[in-house]
Amino acid sequence: MGSVGHVQPQSMHFAEPLPLKSGAALRDYTLVYETYGTLNAARDNAVLVCHALNASHHVAGTYDGQPKSEGWWDNLVGPGKPLDTTKFFVIGINNPGSCFGSTGPMQVDPATDQPYGAHFPVVTVEDWVDAQARLLDRLGITQLAAVLGGSLGGMQALSWSLRHPDRLRHCIAVATAPNLSAQNIAFNEVARRAIVTDPDFHGGHFYAYGTVPKRGLRVARMIGHITYLSDDSMEAKFGRSLKGEAFGYSTQDIEFEIESYLRYQGDKFSDYFDANTYLLITRALDYFDPAREHGGDLTAAFAQARCKFQLVSFTTDWRFSPARSREIVKALLDNRLSVSYAEIDAPHGHDAFLLDDSRYHALLRQRFANIAAEVK
Amino acid sequence: MGSVGHVQPQSMHFAEPLPLKSGAALRDYTLVYETYGTLNAARDNAVLVCHALNASHHVAGTYDGQPKSEGWWDNLVGPGKPLDTTKFFVIGINNPGSCFGSTGPMQVDPATDQPYGAHFPVVTVEDWVDAQARLLDRLGITQLAAVLGGSLGGMQALSWSLRHPDRLRHCIAVATAPNLSAQNIAFNEVARRAIVTDPDFHGGHFYAYGTVPKRGLRVARMIGHITYLSDDSMEAKFGRSLKGEAFGYSTQDIEFEIESYLRYQGDKFSDYFDANTYLLITRALDYFDPAREHGGDLTAAFAQARCKFQLVSFTTDWRFSPARSREIVKALLDNRLSVSYAEIDAPHGHDAFLLDDSRYHALLRQRFANIAAEVK
Repeated sequence: MGSVGHVQPQSMHFAEPLPLKSGAALRDYTLVYETYGTLNAARDNAVLVCHALNASHHVAGTYDGQPKSEGWWDNLVGPGKPLDTTKFFVIGINNPGSCFGSTGPMQVDPATDQPYGAHFPVVTVEDWVDAQARLLDRLGITQLAAVLGGSLGGMQALSWSLRHPDRLRHCIAVATAPNLSAQNIAFNEVARRAIVTDPDFHGGHFYAYGTVPKRGLRVARMIGHITYLSDDSMEAKFGRSLKGEAFGYSTQDIEFEIESYLRYQGDKFSDYFDANTYLLITRALDYFDPAREHGGDLTAAFAQARCKFQLVSFTTDWRFSPARSREIVKALLDNRLSVSYAEIDAPHGHDAFLLDDSRYHALLRQRFANIAAEVK
Repeated sequence: MGSVGHVQPQSMHFAEPLPLKSGAALRDYTLVYETYGTLNAARDNAVLVCHALNASHHVAGTYDGQPKSEGWWDNLVGPGKPLDTTKFFVIGINNPGSCFGSTGPMQVDPATDQPYGAHFPVVTVEDWVDAQARLLDRLGITQLAAVLGGSLGGMQALSWSLRHPDRLRHCIAVATAPNLSAQNIAFNEVARRAIVTDPDFHGGHFYAYGTVPKRGLRVARMIGHITYLSDDSMEAKFGRSLKGEAFGYSTQDIEFEIESYLRYQGDKFSDYFDANTYLLITRALDYFDPAREHGGDLTAAFAQARCKFQLVSFTTDWRFSPARSREIVKALLDNRLSVSYAEIDAPHGHDAFLLDDSRYHALLRQRFANIAAEVK
């Protein structure tokens, strides 16, 4: 099993506005993307990998001169890996609104010649899927062998099966949900309030003030991080271990290892992530709810789907629990669609979808081997 | 079942310093407390009720002229209620470090003539128990019929059984834990970071600046609130209900009812709660760990206990889950102590300990009836 090696992001400009679910439009935008492997002559071996909150188009490989720059799903994607780039043409696309190269709030709004900031239009999972579809049009890919995603990426994979049902043969949605629960929305909202009420946020137009709402970003990331890990894995990794030898009896200094870890994660995140992007992406999560337009009936929502489905959840994921995946499975079965479902007994909580759990990877390896057998 | 009626807080001054677990001392302090019912001639019918993070000495009854001022456990304490004030003399004491009348960070440090602020000494569960014991000395109460508490109050009840084993006959600890898990500490730490990094906090000396770190307090309270409710009860109460008729597509405005609810809770809390108290009380939670001084052996920690125990947990409490109560039960059984344990199937999460669940209240009613039968 090897790496895809050195990779280079590409970019594609779109002059035609993208109509958005909100009724607004994104005009004159650029998408950054990466591809690994080779598109075959039949153009039927393409796999789209959709990213979640914190990731990007950089799915696999490294950048020249940056040895620690592995893509976020490098353990899964590469020659001989479960998603085998000797067989598939793999595409990662940075979604609009992100802060990793595609048009987003940090970039200049052609209408005002100022950074979009808080004026960047609200984007949804459906908008991202439509933007991805346009990029694939340009690459001459009519139908994808598969769309794969975890968490928010899994929502995009599901949305593909509904918006463009004939453009994918397989939908592989990992650690995802048919919509956010009240508790999920609540965590997003607290994170957003931390950002929006940071005085350095300036209503989302902080670029003009030369500030970055780092306090809010740190708190947002710390909250997020707690929900990515399982109670058990946090206990196993940190427990009540102290940073020092004994209690220092302080309300503001670090006492426990877990505090040190969370502060570090928050600091690191606040150095590179854009605050407006955080708001946009958590809102895309909140809004996703394909059953909504069908009176809350998820079975009715999936009536338009045509592809085959693989759902995967993890037992200790309390953010998007197995019960949420089973709701999707039920709706697919109600429609007599082809669906496989695996509930992996993994200790790592939501984060498990990014990790190299042997049963999980074996499952995806087999699934992609079956898909590879279908391509020409 | 009636109310204890109009009540009045009392206060007691202590000139002798209180030695603290940290090695520091609290000098020249005042405790505010309330009592309901009558201490009998044998002085053996006193029940101490310990408060948690957000509560105070005001356990039951109302204040004259303030009809909506019911004490925080008014549904449990009163004539004919489970903790019957026609039989028991019930005492609520505001812990030092709090912001409801007892000496705390908002008050003047006699050493500097300035508000304590961040210089208020770090207080622990054990320090609170010792302060409570001194107040009971002054009231002439040698032995309590029972100590009762939920959550952080339950930790105080447990600590009573260890520090003053001959001064209580019954320990009733509800929805509590033998220590905080890594995840519990993590949530506390995020809340503290939100407060400490609020520019209006000024290192804890905000009183001198005429500011209040309301942004941080709001975020802290929102985080806390999520952990007090169960996923299911939040779903039942709010689900994905919208505040308006349809999506407004905004990253900063309220879309969902749950957002509105959390913002309201945060606003209300930031109007009355002291930021330094929040830090102190969450730290008292973090530090509580009676097994620590016994090499992590909870059974060894409880070897010194003498009283009878009643433990109660709630199935949907994910903050202090039933598994944590069972750890305590095991340690008590290992010591051949008298212990009853009830796991109440209630939907309300951690908050259940404050609510009038019929099975829960029936259990406490029976327990206190049994205790009442023992008094003279």
